Amino acid sequence: MRSKMSKINVGIIGFGTVGAGAFEILTNNRKIIKNRVGADIVVKKISDLDIESDRGVLIDRDLLTVDAMQVIDDPEIDVVVELIGGLEKAKEFILSAMEKGKHVITANKALLAECGQEVFTAAEQYGVNLGFEACVAGGIPVINALRYGLSANNIKTTMGILNGTSNYILTRMAQEALPYDQVVQEAVKLGYAEDPPTLDVDGTDAAHKLTILISIMAGVPVSFDDIYREGITDLTPDDILFAGEFGYCVKLLAIMRNLGNRLEARVHPTMILKDHILANVNEAYNAIYFEGDFVGPGLYYGLGAGRKPTGSAIVSDIMDLARQIRLGTKGLMPPLAHAGSIESRIQIQPMEELESAYYFRFSALDRPGVLSRIAGILGEHSISVSAVIQKGREINGSVPIVMLTHEARESNVKRAISLIDELDALTSRTVMIRVEDRGL
Amino acid sequence: MRSKMSKINVGIIGFGTVGAGAFEILTNNRKIIKNRVGADIVVKKISDLDIESDRGVLIDRDLLTVDAMQVIDDPEIDVVVELIGGLEKAKEFILSAMEKGKHVITANKALLAECGQEVFTAAEQYGVNLGFEACVAGGIPVINALRYGLSANNIKTTMGILNGTSNYILTRMAQEALPYDQVVQEAVKLGYAEDPPTLDVDGTDAAHKLTILISIMAGVPVSFDDIYREGITDLTPDDILFAGEFGYCVKLLAIMRNLGNRLEARVHPTMILKDHILANVNEAYNAIYFEGDFVGPGLYYGLGAGRKPTGSAIVSDIMDLARQIRLGTKGLMPPLAHAGSIESRIQIQPMEELESAYYFRFSALDRPGVLSRIAGILGEHSISVSAVIQKGREINGSVPIVMLTHEARESNVKRAISLIDELDALTSRTVMIRVEDRGL
Repeated sequence: MRSKMSKINVGIIGFGTVGAGAFEILTNNRKIIKNRVGADIVVKKISDLDIESDRGVLIDRDLLTVDAMQVIDDPEIDVVVELIGGLEKAKEFILSAMEKGKHVITANKALLAECGQEVFTAAEQYGVNLGFEACVAGGIPVINALRYGLSANNIKTTMGILNGTSNYILTRMAQEALPYDQVVQEAVKLGYAEDPPTLDVDGTDAAHKLTILISIMAGVPVSFDDIYREGITDLTPDDILFAGEFGYCVKLLAIMRNLGNRLEARVHPTMILKDHILANVNEAYNAIYFEGDFVGPGLYYGLGAGRKPTGSAIVSDIMDLARQIRLGTKGLMPPLAHAGSIESRIQIQPMEELESAYYFRFSALDRPGVLSRIAGILGEHSISVSAVIQKGREINGSVPIVMLTHEARESNVKRAISLIDELDALTSRTVMIRVEDRGL
Repeated sequence: MRSKMSKINVGIIGFGTVGAGAFEILTNNRKIIKNRVGADIVVKKISDLDIESDRGVLIDRDLLTVDAMQVIDDPEIDVVVELIGGLEKAKEFILSAMEKGKHVITANKALLAECGQEVFTAAEQYGVNLGFEACVAGGIPVINALRYGLSANNIKTTMGILNGTSNYILTRMAQEALPYDQVVQEAVKLGYAEDPPTLDVDGTDAAHKLTILISIMAGVPVSFDDIYREGITDLTPDDILFAGEFGYCVKLLAIMRNLGNRLEARVHPTMILKDHILANVNEAYNAIYFEGDFVGPGLYYGLGAGRKPTGSAIVSDIMDLARQIRLGTKGLMPPLAHAGSIESRIQIQPMEELESAYYFRFSALDRPGVLSRIAGILGEHSISVSAVIQKGREINGSVPIVMLTHEARESNVKRAISLIDELDALTSRTVMIRVEDRGL
């Protein structure tokens, strides 16, 4: 490796929104970046299947190629930025680039969550760095916070609003009491959501991000499949309204709780108190709440996605690498920020064993004895009720009975609900939302 | 420098609250830290004038010495942590340690704000690193965010609640409508404030921190004396109440605004809208709001001080250094995060030239014509009023007339107020609070 290099060459594979954003920052802030890093960062080649469309940036067309291998094979390129997304092709490009000794930066959270082990191992094997700040909450340098600023801590709790699209939808549902479908249609029209926004609203995207965060905290890849995920598609304005009457709002949260010998790791709609610091994170904003054993509670808030914020994350990773390349430093920061070998695997608690408070909305015919039957079944399953609202208001011909519980066991809750749903007086499936009373 | 060192020796000068906190983390989380860094971090020596008092940590008494030079002169110590505070002695220790090739970590914000140039230059001259995460908002890794995660950005705006004591006092004044003196007495009694808390409440501490933040953003030390500072000691519950009637709350903010050719840099009580993200930062919490040209707006929130959060910051700096020492890397991160040489000095805008909105409370005898006289003087100074409250409520025998203005020039405001205060009908000095309507 050349020492005290004054120029770092970057190649970009995938020239979509984020690629154009990163290119724009490198161009517009070139002087600032050079002052900070001590070397000029130059984009030497960009590959994309489409090299004709206008990306809204001024670019020398000679930089563009349709062949990603021209980026990977270029011996002068020090850093390869993978921005094509998807699993197989992206992994192939990343592994080839690493094999050629190139450092890699990626925004591909699905790849790192689902095939992380392979990519992290390759990075260590070939002695290259892997930057992925852009994978989680683009405008919030949270990977960086875990790698550096919070590194002395055992992180006890994490609660994140990690998907901007879901948060936008929930914000609008709450503000205007509109049903899910209508808000999604609007969000698609306004460009806030893809059509359909499946991975955003079903919890997959947030679970990808949580997988990556936990892997860094623990120093070993956790299995994405072990993380429970449940989306927001079944939420109704009624439930959001009832939550409000109990003093709560509903957010799609990615939650990690360190139980000592194992972790809770789960993504689902969650009721949090209206004065919780995450309750005021609205629209497409992201936020991550941490509790460390020494640093205490903290919150990081910002834009989660978009051309410029994600571009900023990509370029910050390039700069971090450029400082190291310039000095010929290798292996300073392993992908998962753990230099020691860690043998233990991370145990994720099975969802059935979760202990949580719950919100239920039962839909029942307005008949004597129904409440007592429901309460009886809950009691038999050690589920103790902390609050009940029963109002005359009919929804689709039946009356809602709404309850909050004290802490109960998920397996008991599931069993009780399935028994309750078999009662004749019940007119539709019971709605269940988990409740978080802990944290700030 | 030894390569792939498996043990990093640390010496601590000053074994007060923060020193004991750092020692506790290094002891309690030793295994986690070793896994992350890839080397064992060992506290080899601790100096303090008092080596008898119990710090609440289990410690081998052989580590303790009353002589700081035993830490600095120990050839096996790689990193010296300075935690004695104060200017001259601390600087002397830091410079000697650097001269001996040791990396330095400090929590001494006053020193870096007031004598930064000398310390930063010495670090570069002797080729050692200087870590100072603990100087600004201990529990919030904001130095780290500026050095790494936000590094691609030109930061346009910063607004910070950087002093926990002031924020605690203002929170209590607002919640309980209590006068400043009474709240301070309580805060001292409860251990939330020093007795007297001079540097906390007069804006000096927050201005020290702002000086450091701006120096990193710009890459050159800014002069502490150029930063305007005004404390919270003159605020009254009445003003906080009136602010509330206009929809604002009052916070001691440290503000930086990049005007292109120069910067606003100022610390003073500030009215911000109640739905501003900083408005809900209460008690002793700190928070920093940034707006970058690409990353957009963001907020970092956490504990600003205390044994454990500040200890966490110190140890994160030790770990960052340890990774580099282990690989024999030198000069990766200059103190101000700028590797290039920057010739230009930072121009701070003189306070008289500030353009801001203002809140005034005039205390006047309840007599005809007074409002018209006041309005006339304001008009003559190009100060245009956006809202007025005049209520019968008497305070000390006179009636308050409260106003908000549109943007006006500070020099005009000062001149107008001094003329208004000369009017016969005015019974006491006019209160002026600056108002921020910009930002999130």
